[in-house]
Amino acid sequence: MDNQKIHMNGGDGPNSYANNSEYQKQLVGYSKIVMTELIEQELDVGIINPDCSPFCVADFGCSVGANTYLAVQNIIEAVETKYKSNEQDQENPQLQVPEFLVFFNDLVQNDFNTLFNYIHGNEPNYFTTGIPGSFYGRVFPKAFLHFAHSSMSLLYLSRIPEEVLDRKSAAWNKGRIHYSCSGAAKEVEAAYSNQFRKDIQAFLDARAQELVPGGLMAIITLTILDGVLPSDSPMALNFTILGSCLQDMANMGIMSEEKLDSFNLPYYYTSPMELETLIKTHGCFDIVRFEKLPTPLRQVVIDVQTAVLSMRVVTEQLFQQHFGKDITEELFQRYTEKLDSHPVLKDDKYRTDASYFVFLKRKTETSKPGS
Amino acid sequence: MDNQKIHMNGGDGPNSYANNSEYQKQLVGYSKIVMTELIEQELDVGIINPDCSPFCVADFGCSVGANTYLAVQNIIEAVETKYKSNEQDQENPQLQVPEFLVFFNDLVQNDFNTLFNYIHGNEPNYFTTGIPGSFYGRVFPKAFLHFAHSSMSLLYLSRIPEEVLDRKSAAWNKGRIHYSCSGAAKEVEAAYSNQFRKDIQAFLDARAQELVPGGLMAIITLTILDGVLPSDSPMALNFTILGSCLQDMANMGIMSEEKLDSFNLPYYYTSPMELETLIKTHGCFDIVRFEKLPTPLRQVVIDVQTAVLSMRVVTEQLFQQHFGKDITEELFQRYTEKLDSHPVLKDDKYRTDASYFVFLKRKTETSKPGS
Repeated sequence: MDNQKIHMNGGDGPNSYANNSEYQKQLVGYSKIVMTELIEQELDVGIINPDCSPFCVADFGCSVGANTYLAVQNIIEAVETKYKSNEQDQENPQLQVPEFLVFFNDLVQNDFNTLFNYIHGNEPNYFTTGIPGSFYGRVFPKAFLHFAHSSMSLLYLSRIPEEVLDRKSAAWNKGRIHYSCSGAAKEVEAAYSNQFRKDIQAFLDARAQELVPGGLMAIITLTILDGVLPSDSPMALNFTILGSCLQDMANMGIMSEEKLDSFNLPYYYTSPMELETLIKTHGCFDIVRFEKLPTPLRQVVIDVQTAVLSMRVVTEQLFQQHFGKDITEELFQRYTEKLDSHPVLKDDKYRTDASYFVFLKRKTETSKPGS
Repeated sequence: MDNQKIHMNGGDGPNSYANNSEYQKQLVGYSKIVMTELIEQELDVGIINPDCSPFCVADFGCSVGANTYLAVQNIIEAVETKYKSNEQDQENPQLQVPEFLVFFNDLVQNDFNTLFNYIHGNEPNYFTTGIPGSFYGRVFPKAFLHFAHSSMSLLYLSRIPEEVLDRKSAAWNKGRIHYSCSGAAKEVEAAYSNQFRKDIQAFLDARAQELVPGGLMAIITLTILDGVLPSDSPMALNFTILGSCLQDMANMGIMSEEKLDSFNLPYYYTSPMELETLIKTHGCFDIVRFEKLPTPLRQVVIDVQTAVLSMRVVTEQLFQQHFGKDITEELFQRYTEKLDSHPVLKDDKYRTDASYFVFLKRKTETSKPGS
């Protein structure tokens, strides 16, 4: 199963990602202060050649709505501030605040029409483009970008590992929809982890080529804390409940058992240690900062409808692509009922996830992979 | 009336621009040979700085579908050929075929989702982006583009001239939907022509800033031949018939007389002489070629359904925005009936329009407007 079609719910209606991504928005907010500080500290204003280049920013996995706009706004303000303070430096009078060209990237199935309408409605002070394509491959020319950003996108694998769907494999995940679901074999997690390692490597390879030497990259991603078993994470509980709803529907004959067995969710929650190791091993980026972000408020005080919608806007397209458009109303109705009676929303012991902010700088003296 | 919302019918259904733009496609085909020849002759391979820039191409007013893809393909093939022949020149061994970054531009209301799906399905050998915004203003950073292309887009005015809708003005176009319609005052044409002059100036101002010195631009546009009265053009007949259908509907009470009087179509058909004069007067571009293209075959042997669909895909959004979504089925049904009994489709004397191919080069020694 190739997951090149993962995308959030489009449009701006009640079930859209644009209107149900408060959690992700808070993370962007938390990262603003540290990102501003690090841009001031790390950005070399000389990385652009003002004769032939604007300052190019890309948001990888932008989806639709306010979050990508806010993240980009934060970056541009910080970069402008840095150039303005540099303008006053009389020793380098030639460096003015550059023009900005911003690229919003997501898979080709993303709702770019709604995104463009939103961005234009805010009359941004930069040139706006959309760039469709998987960020696990090259989407930009070489040495073109000055700043890359990606928030809550690297947890989407490029594909479901094949062995998870292979009944002859020890990693076959029969009757479950994720490696974190109750009862999944260790081999399932290993297969997911292996796919994540390949994907991160591909992501860093591509960005290493696309960023200029000295270019910066900010990543926000959701992790499960070091040492926590996947089955003890809040995702595990959510996905186990979702999976049991699907199993109920299979038992009622709404879908076949085979159909259910051939479905797994393409999400992987790395641990801080795993992610840091993969970046260090890759070798093209210096880790300038690697820190835990505060827990979004919404996770602490949450109601069941909000929880269901947050899940629905990111997963619904996947269920529809596999099981057909007709099943999702019933699926999320069942999910709402089961979730409402479950302690996952209220109990602190399930708070084993945490979002991390990672700030990287493209090294200048390593060889470029793939080039 | 601000016409920032002009766009072709989106999607890829039976009433889409993507499936009803054979006329425009033939023009792109005709221009291929001359464009290839002129790129070989005029392109200075040294206009890109390979250290910090890919070769950047933009199609202004791209709409949706195969035509923009084909136009870009023709440009890239010709540029690649030029660089390849240059590679074999042992005196400049450093110049290799560059990477290409292509920007598809149209108004924010354009159906970029369908466009991206089409382009990606063709697995292009360049990096693809969409850049939303009116080409009558800046959409790119300064000195960023190397090749600009625009086919059949400059006939869309940025707005309806105000006086055309002003009952106190001599240019008030009461009961008609276009300056070419039978009985329109001379002042109406003058108001449209004046708006066109401002728009072309704005277009050339913006492109003069966005193109690097030596950058190239190819324009295809539809003209009415020098000396022909607007009312003797095929557009005049089409728009007069369309207008009479609307008048019939107003008479039946389907819409008010006031609603009809407040509507005009934002198309202007320049003459070859007018266009050439405006470009020369502007002063930032050398005219390398200015030539008439063959008449697309479809215009010679045409059936009424094809003619109606070709009109519908480019005008329907304008009618819907002004009169509401419900009227267009009836409008185009009436138009089909009237057009079928009219000689415009068969008579040679109405062939007073012609498409022109214009190839420009950004001068290197003039001042940049607005900079």
